[in-house]
Amino acid sequence: MDILLQRRSIRRYQNRPVEEPLVEYCLRAAMAAPSAHNQQPWAFIVIDNRELLDAVPGFHPYSRMLYEAPMAILVCGDTRDLKSPDFWPQDCAAAVENILLAACSRGLGSVWMGVYPKEPIMQGFRRLLELPDTLVPFALVALGYGAEEKGPSDRYDPARVYRNVWRADNR
Amino acid sequence: MDILLQRRSIRRYQNRPVEEPLVEYCLRAAMAAPSAHNQQPWAFIVIDNRELLDAVPGFHPYSRMLYEAPMAILVCGDTRDLKSPDFWPQDCAAAVENILLAACSRGLGSVWMGVYPKEPIMQGFRRLLELPDTLVPFALVALGYGAEEKGPSDRYDPARVYRNVWRADNR
Repeated sequence: MDILLQRRSIRRYQNRPVEEPLVEYCLRAAMAAPSAHNQQPWAFIVIDNRELLDAVPGFHPYSRMLYEAPMAILVCGDTRDLKSPDFWPQDCAAAVENILLAACSRGLGSVWMGVYPKEPIMQGFRRLLELPDTLVPFALVALGYGAEEKGPSDRYDPARVYRNVWRADNR
Repeated sequence: MDILLQRRSIRRYQNRPVEEPLVEYCLRAAMAAPSAHNQQPWAFIVIDNRELLDAVPGFHPYSRMLYEAPMAILVCGDTRDLKSPDFWPQDCAAAVENILLAACSRGLGSVWMGVYPKEPIMQGFRRLLELPDTLVPFALVALGYGAEEKGPSDRYDPARVYRNVWRADNR
């Protein structure tokens, strides 16, 4: 199975917890992501408390799947002492993508919910999880055994590919 | 082989071109990345012209491996008519990570060079490749058969993982 091409956003979940070794595998994959100057500017809040999960849709408009998901991971930027402070969001995005792929490779469903740079949503997480100012809520990933099946979606579009130079007549 | 944990930055390359089906596979993986509202805000410039590759280190300080690499892919944000304009850099970062993983899974080496939001580097690419204003140079990925071997680097750090709430005494 080619997880790069198979991964889809899964928003319906079974009422079944995710085993701890799978959670750790997803986090290990996240921290294996590349980062600018290998600065690894991230921290991860594993959320499996039902009250916390149910509180998120109160400030995040696209997170209602959390009522069903057994857990989620909040990926945060740890912005202390960065060598390349401009790049931490990209580094964190690579870590998020690795979580999604790790989950898919182990039979889990997942979906990426954007957080940064939406200040009201970021503030919601800061308050809910009592985060310090040095952690910037970046993205929330819901995780669980899927209750929906999706085939691969081929989004390959040759019109988006140029060779050595941009040309207006590529399409 | 677990590509998520095996992938490393490869900066030395053999003098050997990358076969076209492998290039297309990397681009297919890139476009399979998730994006906010599935907006797919990206375009890809495949660079295999030697003069163009050799010109990049003139304006990008961390790109000298291009003198050796047979090719590179410039991932650009296509910022026209976006539903979620705040999220295009994250979407593009996920696409970049998928290119790196696709390359690794096919025996290629790669390295991610940051571009956005460094304006002088972005301007260098705009001029070199005659890009329109709607394409924002985001990241450059060098690709090729590696001339160095690296084992996996286990960056897993349990001190960066919190459970339901942040605690100052996590370490």
